[in-house]
Amino acid sequence: MIFGRIKSEGIAHLSYFLGSGNEAVVIDPRRDCQIYVDMARKNGMNIKYIFETHRNEDYVIGSKQLKNLTDADIYHGINLDFEYGNTLKDKQTFTFGSLKLTALHTPGHTDESMSYVLTDLNSNEAPVMVFTGDTLFVGDVGRTDLYGPDETSQMASKLYDSIFNKILPLGDEVILCPAHGAGSVCGGAISEREHSTLGLERIHNPVLQKTERDKFVKHKLAEHHEYPPYFRKMEEYNLRGPPILKCLPIPQMLSPQEFREEMEKGAIVVDTRMPHSFGGAHIKDTYSIWLEGLPSFAGWFLPYDKPILLVMEEKEQLDRAVKYLVRLGYDNIKGFLEGGISAWYMEALPVDGFHLISVHDLKRKLDENEKMVILDVRGQDEWEAGHIKRSTHVYVGNLEDNLDKLPDKCQVVVYCGSARRSNIAASILKRNGYKKIYNVLGSMAAWKNAGYEIVK
Amino acid sequence: MIFGRIKSEGIAHLSYFLGSGNEAVVIDPRRDCQIYVDMARKNGMNIKYIFETHRNEDYVIGSKQLKNLTDADIYHGINLDFEYGNTLKDKQTFTFGSLKLTALHTPGHTDESMSYVLTDLNSNEAPVMVFTGDTLFVGDVGRTDLYGPDETSQMASKLYDSIFNKILPLGDEVILCPAHGAGSVCGGAISEREHSTLGLERIHNPVLQKTERDKFVKHKLAEHHEYPPYFRKMEEYNLRGPPILKCLPIPQMLSPQEFREEMEKGAIVVDTRMPHSFGGAHIKDTYSIWLEGLPSFAGWFLPYDKPILLVMEEKEQLDRAVKYLVRLGYDNIKGFLEGGISAWYMEALPVDGFHLISVHDLKRKLDENEKMVILDVRGQDEWEAGHIKRSTHVYVGNLEDNLDKLPDKCQVVVYCGSARRSNIAASILKRNGYKKIYNVLGSMAAWKNAGYEIVK
Amino acid sequence: MIFGRIKSEGIAHLSYFLGSGNEAVVIDPRRDCQIYVDMARKNGMNIKYIFETHRNEDYVIGSKQLKNLTDADIYHGINLDFEYGNTLKDKQTFTFGSLKLTALHTPGHTDESMSYVLTDLNSNEAPVMVFTGDTLFVGDVGRTDLYGPDETSQMASKLYDSIFNKILPLGDEVILCPAHGAGSVCGGAISEREHSTLGLERIHNPVLQKTERDKFVKHKLAEHHEYPPYFRKMEEYNLRGPPILKCLPIPQMLSPQEFREEMEKGAIVVDTRMPHSFGGAHIKDTYSIWLEGLPSFAGWFLPYDKPILLVMEEKEQLDRAVKYLVRLGYDNIKGFLEGGISAWYMEALPVDGFHLISVHDLKRKLDENEKMVILDVRGQDEWEAGHIKRSTHVYVGNLEDNLDKLPDKCQVVVYCGSARRSNIAASILKRNGYKKIYNVLGSMAAWKNAGYEIVK
Amino acid sequence: MIFGRIKSEGIAHLSYFLGSGNEAVVIDPRRDCQIYVDMARKNGMNIKYIFETHRNEDYVIGSKQLKNLTDADIYHGINLDFEYGNTLKDKQTFTFGSLKLTALHTPGHTDESMSYVLTDLNSNEAPVMVFTGDTLFVGDVGRTDLYGPDETSQMASKLYDSIFNKILPLGDEVILCPAHGAGSVCGGAISEREHSTLGLERIHNPVLQKTERDKFVKHKLAEHHEYPPYFRKMEEYNLRGPPILKCLPIPQMLSPQEFREEMEKGAIVVDTRMPHSFGGAHIKDTYSIWLEGLPSFAGWFLPYDKPILLVMEEKEQLDRAVKYLVRLGYDNIKGFLEGGISAWYMEALPVDGFHLISVHDLKRKLDENEKMVILDVRGQDEWEAGHIKRSTHVYVGNLEDNLDKLPDKCQVVVYCGSARRSNIAASILKRNGYKKIYNVLGSMAAWKNAGYEIVK
Repeated sequence: MIFGRIKSEGIAHLSYFLGSGNEAVVIDPRRDCQIYVDMARKNGMNIKYIFETHRNEDYVIGSKQLKNLTDADIYHGINLDFEYGNTLKDKQTFTFGSLKLTALHTPGHTDESMSYVLTDLNSNEAPVMVFTGDTLFVGDVGRTDLYGPDETSQMASKLYDSIFNKILPLGDEVILCPAHGAGSVCGGAISEREHSTLGLERIHNPVLQKTERDKFVKHKLAEHHEYPPYFRKMEEYNLRGPPILKCLPIPQMLSPQEFREEMEKGAIVVDTRMPHSFGGAHIKDTYSIWLEGLPSFAGWFLPYDKPILLVMEEKEQLDRAVKYLVRLGYDNIKGFLEGGISAWYMEALPVDGFHLISVHDLKRKLDENEKMVILDVRGQDEWEAGHIKRSTHVYVGNLEDNLDKLPDKCQVVVYCGSARRSNIAASILKRNGYKKIYNVLGSMAAWKNAGYEIVK
Repeated sequence: MIFGRIKSEGIAHLSYFLGSGNEAVVIDPRRDCQIYVDMARKNGMNIKYIFETHRNEDYVIGSKQLKNLTDADIYHGINLDFEYGNTLKDKQTFTFGSLKLTALHTPGHTDESMSYVLTDLNSNEAPVMVFTGDTLFVGDVGRTDLYGPDETSQMASKLYDSIFNKILPLGDEVILCPAHGAGSVCGGAISEREHSTLGLERIHNPVLQKTERDKFVKHKLAEHHEYPPYFRKMEEYNLRGPPILKCLPIPQMLSPQEFREEMEKGAIVVDTRMPHSFGGAHIKDTYSIWLEGLPSFAGWFLPYDKPILLVMEEKEQLDRAVKYLVRLGYDNIKGFLEGGISAWYMEALPVDGFHLISVHDLKRKLDENEKMVILDVRGQDEWEAGHIKRSTHVYVGNLEDNLDKLPDKCQVVVYCGSARRSNIAASILKRNGYKKIYNVLGSMAAWKNAGYEIVK
Repeated sequence: MIFGRIKSEGIAHLSYFLGSGNEAVVIDPRRDCQIYVDMARKNGMNIKYIFETHRNEDYVIGSKQLKNLTDADIYHGINLDFEYGNTLKDKQTFTFGSLKLTALHTPGHTDESMSYVLTDLNSNEAPVMVFTGDTLFVGDVGRTDLYGPDETSQMASKLYDSIFNKILPLGDEVILCPAHGAGSVCGGAISEREHSTLGLERIHNPVLQKTERDKFVKHKLAEHHEYPPYFRKMEEYNLRGPPILKCLPIPQMLSPQEFREEMEKGAIVVDTRMPHSFGGAHIKDTYSIWLEGLPSFAGWFLPYDKPILLVMEEKEQLDRAVKYLVRLGYDNIKGFLEGGISAWYMEALPVDGFHLISVHDLKRKLDENEKMVILDVRGQDEWEAGHIKRSTHVYVGNLEDNLDKLPDKCQVVVYCGSARRSNIAASILKRNGYKKIYNVLGSMAAWKNAGYEIVK
Repeated sequence: MIFGRIKSEGIAHLSYFLGSGNEAVVIDPRRDCQIYVDMARKNGMNIKYIFETHRNEDYVIGSKQLKNLTDADIYHGINLDFEYGNTLKDKQTFTFGSLKLTALHTPGHTDESMSYVLTDLNSNEAPVMVFTGDTLFVGDVGRTDLYGPDETSQMASKLYDSIFNKILPLGDEVILCPAHGAGSVCGGAISEREHSTLGLERIHNPVLQKTERDKFVKHKLAEHHEYPPYFRKMEEYNLRGPPILKCLPIPQMLSPQEFREEMEKGAIVVDTRMPHSFGGAHIKDTYSIWLEGLPSFAGWFLPYDKPILLVMEEKEQLDRAVKYLVRLGYDNIKGFLEGGISAWYMEALPVDGFHLISVHDLKRKLDENEKMVILDVRGQDEWEAGHIKRSTHVYVGNLEDNLDKLPDKCQVVVYCGSARRSNIAASILKRNGYKKIYNVLGSMAAWKNAGYEIVK
């Protein structure tokens, strides 16, 4: 038996390659799917089936791409009208080599969500592993708000059934294989430990301590998750099937002059440097999204119909940037700035900038009652858990649509948890004509560590 | 949490790298230990402790080598007088980052055998993983015969206690991390599936179905394992500490002429080709041990005080051969034959050979009552499970000491399970002056598949 | 400036990646062309042009495949009606970054052969490198017999002009970049040293010592090269454009039973083991072509319209085998035998075999005047340089068409230079019903080294 | 013949691995020398000799380290009393496989400088390659000022002889293999093209156009090179033999608190971020040396007797940072800041900072005649070629010793060619109590591109 857990950084997505004899299956393949082909080739295996646990909303699934290379059969969950592949039946079984997968309908995160139970025909029928998609994670469970607030209660109740009446009864000893690890937007409290079992979850997972349906549903109703607009695009892609890529995009290194020309032709620029690097000076009208934030935030802001240009701290980061964008369906990555922002400076081309401010200086401003808007761009939950007094709350993802909440274009001090999301926000304010912007270094983390007052 | 399972092919040895924060531990490191150093460096971790589950007898432990590079502290099990490192106490605990390991004395395989229970201080005190060394495997348990037949019963009883009263009570949900996977000489029936939990073992592991002490001990007493002489060497090395290697040996490519000169100076030649390749023609007086058989069989035959020369099917196999030998403590690997055996032929240098025979031809010889010795070189268990009639049994590892059982040097037909061990045997007979030797292609597997008679 | 020399083992083919600024060109890409894409991506370069030095006859060119991934423009030599890409003009120039390539018509090997002269626009117009395709190698020149014996003289004269009047005048200091290194079928005497200059060739290259046209042409007329039938297939592919591959084939590991079923359905089996391994026992009716001989010999024997199955010494060799076959246009590689030939033996399935014989035993047979056909399957040149008395000459590639030269199906003793090609021959004789076959271990090399008589 | 050119980025150092048959030599090995061992092992070669072209002053040579692993013999140039290895004689020859190296005394860069001429015993005695160390580069020649101004003229004259009377006469066709590529501190004008021949240098190399001794010497006298203090340390190491490393250092990831504790215990911090990232906010009293500047600038500033701590843009850069430092002899690299500077901010720990200023703003300040010191920290040659008016010149490497040239601690505006060296300078000024510092974005490059006035 070959067991491969393929982790895609950024969205912390986990896909799985299972092989036995000369047959293999892949569960939830990512779009840059050469890795599964290589595993198949190395082991002389034919990829027979591709299984999806559900129609994903946070990345583009690679099923069609992988089928294009291998002719495997794709299987989707029930209750959704996918335009490619086959629809499963509950308890449908699939044999490959001496292994068997049984599809288990486990709705709650989405209506068509499936789990897959692995048994080893060489032993007996007792389950060995379960692939739970976004239903059950290590330390958390899937979000149940995707169909809107009116449906959350019902979805939470379904999730309760799926977990307590279908998955946990498989046995404490069963190995848990979820679709995400820590860092996903699909479950906020996923544990950093990646290896778990149903029993360990039963004992350790905080949400599973709510063993009564009411308490479980209530817990889920109290959660707040952001719902980015690109989820719609992902859902559409994953329902209809995304475009097939011949190979990963090959962005071209562009001189500052060439870069500028592409900008003038309409390309969108993303600067992937860290906040402390971006604030000092950057190309006017660019989005700031730090490299490791691309998987979670690019989809909020970048359009799908324009070429994308990158400014990076160094060329060695290109491969990561490209993969992060492609996994979100951005296939037109035109180029990157040769020599990084330094090269731009050396051409004496115009730059823009805003201020970095320490929490100590912010405290002083507050104490001096300085006129300013203090903008908190964190999530609703974070805001509610405590914020800096006098601050206004707009989630970073919703900022472009809520600029009216920042009445005048005077001084704006932005913070988030660490200064990363606030840096995105600062770049958006800049694009919208705000002149005097401060990003708070270390943001709420620093504010807390400095011992300054937090209000609710 | 970083969890690395490092598999050393050949002996199917599993070592583990566990890291949290900026601290790491390694359990049962192998001797070519750069891999742990690389993991530490990549993660910015200090290897704080090295733990041994027991004094191994089937390979050279890499603890001293790794300590030489990292200054980690080595910990051994109790009841043995190791000449390096520290001795554990039962239930002694070690913290690194937010993880905790608790040493658990689990004798049975050896007297000083330890298991290590992992808990995650971020969750609660419930165990998450257990590292069981050679005490409990996926699908089997450790052998209990290492102290000789007089002690086997007592050791089996200790093993029963260790497993049923110490390990299994940790909980069905605990992830099992043993020291060997399928293919080890330390447990004959280890499963090919590498991922398991205590609960899966409780349910699936055939030996653990013997839940009564008597039946368990009886089962262990009925087992027969070979006890190679190199185990003593390994034990000595692992008790005193093996020599430190500056780097892995760099065997030199030798022309046939240079190769011959080294042979004349006393070097021992191992031909790592497969039986079907070796039998036809080979260099006189060489040992035949197929490449993947080196980890299990080199130690039976190769002396530790002479340089070793290799004949390989192709140069690309050198790295594997070197690692297999170094892990057994063979550090003086002088060279390999340039161009392989073809180059030897092309020099018109003398070759030796023996016959390959199909099971059908052997059947004919038997039916015709031809005068011959039929030699079965499989293990005792295999022999007892059924063999070809008229055959004599001597385990391949004991053949050199039991040549008196093959009275005259007439025709000898050798077989094993697949023709690999019988090829070793054939090469030994050749070295000892036997002239007319046949190795049975496919051996007992083919004999069975052909439907020929098996006697007990 | 990025300069990449990409060597494809087996046919010793050299392709080149040249980059400057954000633009690159590739010269003579191979079909498995991900390597060029990776170089382009790593360096942020756009592959602007693909140049072919000539229509190759010994492998499938990757231009179309690479264009499919990158949209580069393909350029071919003049005088041939290619069905894709563009036709060059003599002295046409191409600029990329700060480099310039000038196409130079250098016929002789083929009529449309081009060389490409590199100049660095940052220095001056003096040439820096020249890419000579199959016109000039390190230590040899291209063959001139591809258009048949009637044209050889004229082609040799053209080659003389190309080398002496176009290439060498570029200057002693110019770095030579040919399309093949040692081991190619396109020039028998290519040096093992891969780095050279026009001056080093002028001084060291034996053929370039023939500075008078007459002597040069005479030298070329005296050469004898084999002309395999697959050259026609390659020419057709390279003229029309070969099929586009979505990815490299993924041969499936097949159990002996599955393997047998595919054979029965018409698949062709190639056994890539070495002669000493194949002779003893192999699957009936299989072709024996040792792994590293695939690039040169597969094309002589394997049909293009049937699935191919592989028997290999070990699974680790699959990647090489697949690449060798794909580069020759064999895209339908169905599977390989799981567990290698051992697994076949263990199933007690029928095997075939022939004898391996030492030169000493052959000498004895000759001295005893034994009735046998001695078959020399080497090339014409080798045969003429001296052979074993009483032997018959048929080149291995022509054997299937010349079986009438081996009158009866009695004992045949086959030899070549080293026993590899003779092993192919032996497998062909077997396929054609010859019963008693001997392959001579070490063949002519051993015969010579043993000091036995050679006749002309 | 195996020819390996091993490039060490940063100092653009080139070392060479040459192999033939089963023997190899290494020329000018670097200290992290596993790469040569791997090449030897892969090819079954014994590294027989290690040759040094000269006692290097810009990095720590790896000869002793490599000898420690392989037992190769080390050879040094004449006229220096090395404390390890052997001293060469002029024209001494060494044979390995079928290759021959002849040592050629070519003083000028240093007194003991050697070149090595390669001939191929399979061809004839005509030279094929020459390894020129720091005597002749692609596009430049070695510096001749290392023994001080009084000796420069004489050394230049010796270099003239070495190049014109010893190296160039080897022949236009000989392949040039120097010890550095573009980016070295050992020759300012080395070409970006890495492949060359003696003939190409004769034609293209600007310095070699000075064919008369007088003009050549005059040209060399007019050059100005910096002479960093660490050159003495390198010379001492390379003369006596540097410490042997068991393995590369393993810096530990440190939390901000742990990092701060190490600082308090005396560790020196290097922040390897780019200027635009560093200026905004950094840990007080740290040196700023951008990552790719470490090989050239770390040696100017970092002490050899204190532990070093790193602040990096991201963890992925650690491997490069460690190698750069080890090659300069910094073996005590204690740790790096976990989470980078963001983590520091989030702890609300104190930070320092200075201003980034555009050339346009600097122009305005100048036009307004603002009171400030404008500091140019470029090399003497660059300064003389033109600078910004009112500026003071102190080379960055000499700044700590020349702070008296900056009379008061008022406003200092620093610039260099691109803002990198000026950022180092700014960090030094900060360490020395200067309060108001501006680093000019894009520096002289931007100043020029903006069309502002340059004075001489």
